[in-house]
Amino acid sequence: MDDKLMLMIPGPTPVPEQALLALSRHPIGHRSGDFSKIMAEVTQNLKWLHQTENDVLILTASGTGAMEAGIINFLSPGDRVLVGCNGKFGDRWAEVCEAYGLAVEKVSAEWGKALEPEQFREKLAADTGKQIKAVILTHSETSTGVLNDLEAINRHVKDHGEALMMVDTVTSLGAVNVPMDAWGLDVVASGSQKGYMIPPGLGFVGVSPKAWEAYKTAKLPRYYLDLGKYRKDAAKNTTPFTPPVNLFFALQASLNMMRNEGLENIFARHQRLMKATRAAIKAMDLPLLTSDEAASPAITAVGPAQIDAEKVRSIVKKRFDIVLAGGQDHLTGKIFRIGHLGFVSDRDILAAIASLEVAFKELGHKSFTPGAGVAAAAEIFAQS
Amino acid sequence: MDDKLMLMIPGPTPVPEQALLALSRHPIGHRSGDFSKIMAEVTQNLKWLHQTENDVLILTASGTGAMEAGIINFLSPGDRVLVGCNGKFGDRWAEVCEAYGLAVEKVSAEWGKALEPEQFREKLAADTGKQIKAVILTHSETSTGVLNDLEAINRHVKDHGEALMMVDTVTSLGAVNVPMDAWGLDVVASGSQKGYMIPPGLGFVGVSPKAWEAYKTAKLPRYYLDLGKYRKDAAKNTTPFTPPVNLFFALQASLNMMRNEGLENIFARHQRLMKATRAAIKAMDLPLLTSDEAASPAITAVGPAQIDAEKVRSIVKKRFDIVLAGGQDHLTGKIFRIGHLGFVSDRDILAAIASLEVAFKELGHKSFTPGAGVAAAAEIFAQS
Repeated sequence: MDDKLMLMIPGPTPVPEQALLALSRHPIGHRSGDFSKIMAEVTQNLKWLHQTENDVLILTASGTGAMEAGIINFLSPGDRVLVGCNGKFGDRWAEVCEAYGLAVEKVSAEWGKALEPEQFREKLAADTGKQIKAVILTHSETSTGVLNDLEAINRHVKDHGEALMMVDTVTSLGAVNVPMDAWGLDVVASGSQKGYMIPPGLGFVGVSPKAWEAYKTAKLPRYYLDLGKYRKDAAKNTTPFTPPVNLFFALQASLNMMRNEGLENIFARHQRLMKATRAAIKAMDLPLLTSDEAASPAITAVGPAQIDAEKVRSIVKKRFDIVLAGGQDHLTGKIFRIGHLGFVSDRDILAAIASLEVAFKELGHKSFTPGAGVAAAAEIFAQS
Repeated sequence: MDDKLMLMIPGPTPVPEQALLALSRHPIGHRSGDFSKIMAEVTQNLKWLHQTENDVLILTASGTGAMEAGIINFLSPGDRVLVGCNGKFGDRWAEVCEAYGLAVEKVSAEWGKALEPEQFREKLAADTGKQIKAVILTHSETSTGVLNDLEAINRHVKDHGEALMMVDTVTSLGAVNVPMDAWGLDVVASGSQKGYMIPPGLGFVGVSPKAWEAYKTAKLPRYYLDLGKYRKDAAKNTTPFTPPVNLFFALQASLNMMRNEGLENIFARHQRLMKATRAAIKAMDLPLLTSDEAASPAITAVGPAQIDAEKVRSIVKKRFDIVLAGGQDHLTGKIFRIGHLGFVSDRDILAAIASLEVAFKELGHKSFTPGAGVAAAAEIFAQS
């Protein structure tokens, strides 16, 4: 049905009407007082979202651009880094590091499993010469729906003392607690088309004072992604390069919505959406890719075994205008992923689960009682 | 007056209603068939705009990001480059090159004057060992309203044979003829908030086969700005990193408007706007920063000598809701700049000139007959 599309992919996520309408305002000059006011407001609200007093800088870039900036501004050629690899995005950060000539050591886990904090502890404890300059981690691994144990891994990084903790929070920020200052995270990178509830085009990087210290001697080349330039201009409520002003209008609107909802409520909502989705999939007798303990509140991956994941996606798209994500790389065709990140309500989950029930039946998966998925989700909603 | 703002700065430029409305459509998934169709269409239209059969790649970045990508993908550390410097943007490209460890040789001219093609000829002719790997030029220097003689300089680059011709066309593409293939330009970089008539957030890079040859051995590090990734994915009508889908909707709309108008008509309109603006300023007895021969069809800089440039800007903003640009760097406070790039009509110029007449009189500049500016502009419009 025209105009009925419902995005349940892990980005772009659904965009609320007030952000969409803000997008269609005529642009203003980015060197104007009016833009500076917006810049000041969104910067304050970004600090609130990151739970930090540190800088949170805004780039015209995708999340990858933001994460690359977060890596290359604080390191020098040959620096040793540990990169957590248990999905497409962890692998990507290893590629970025290699492209810049860093000495990459991967800490890997199977896709769908969480990284083992103990493996980080061992490598960090063994590095008595303090050669490891950064630990790079994907908090919520979008490709599998795994939430890595950032808090535990970060504790080992803090025990090491030297290494910077750099985190891809692209699908965790605004979905689960990421207290930048309380945990002492050094680099926190994210993108606008996720928990922020606005379209893609903006990247964000939170930077700690310890990272700025490293910046002073870091030697990897950069210009457009040079965060020092963004910091200098942010202090004057402006940007070094022309910002996408319309996306700033939308960001202003969505951050105000987030403040109105409140961090605790946002996190609780994502927990509820995750639990309901997982309970429903289990009640429909299909396997989840990740364990409950490793599950991301942003996205749930289902490995439907005997039925074709791509056919599931195709049916719910054609019949119900719901867009689900497929698997990536070696998981292509083997899983589908349900995004429940950002502007998503309990109603959206009920609609998605009910639609999936129809698709599963149509594809011959009959080992569940009709309505069991929806009932299981409703049970979670009744509890919380 | 609320909602009456008229942007006459060199970017963001005015955005037509159909592009604004396209921006507020709900995003679609960027890995969908629907997005691929848009990608295919805008890529074809970008080739039309660049007058090329080569690749034109689309980045989530400002014009600076696009130009940096255009430089760093085709060069290696220590490579010798000639950079034309006669304004803020030429200087910026020299800074980018220096940040990446290239051996920069500046070919400079005073701000407000055009670069001398002869200076390029001499340096290129003297380079019999073919050590110069690129000539980097700003076609329309936004900071001064100078149009550098790209065609002449490019002829010398072609005589040299080895060096790549890399051009910042940020405020020339879509305003003046830039026939990428006919002239054999190797890198053509631009940004969405200029002739494209949409808000900032997208950068574009046209790349020649000769540049792709250089790419094979180029060793400057890059990942997010690695154009090889964009090329590979563009062949499948997709992008390596999440694209700003809403800006693609707007781009689709504005490129269709441009095709409807036609390249020759677009160029003729910008010539007319430039000539009318310059004739009006002369008729109001104020000095233009650039000569007629060096004038950019995108922007006209006025050095008002005895009256305060910032006061002119302030009056037309407050009284008539017209935003003019000020001077940059050492020209701050000494000039104002009238943008006439993109979605600008004869009527806009008449309104701007008439408003300036009021401001000039208010500031005590009386050495012109009231109405003379508007009459001079109208005379140009009557001729063409």
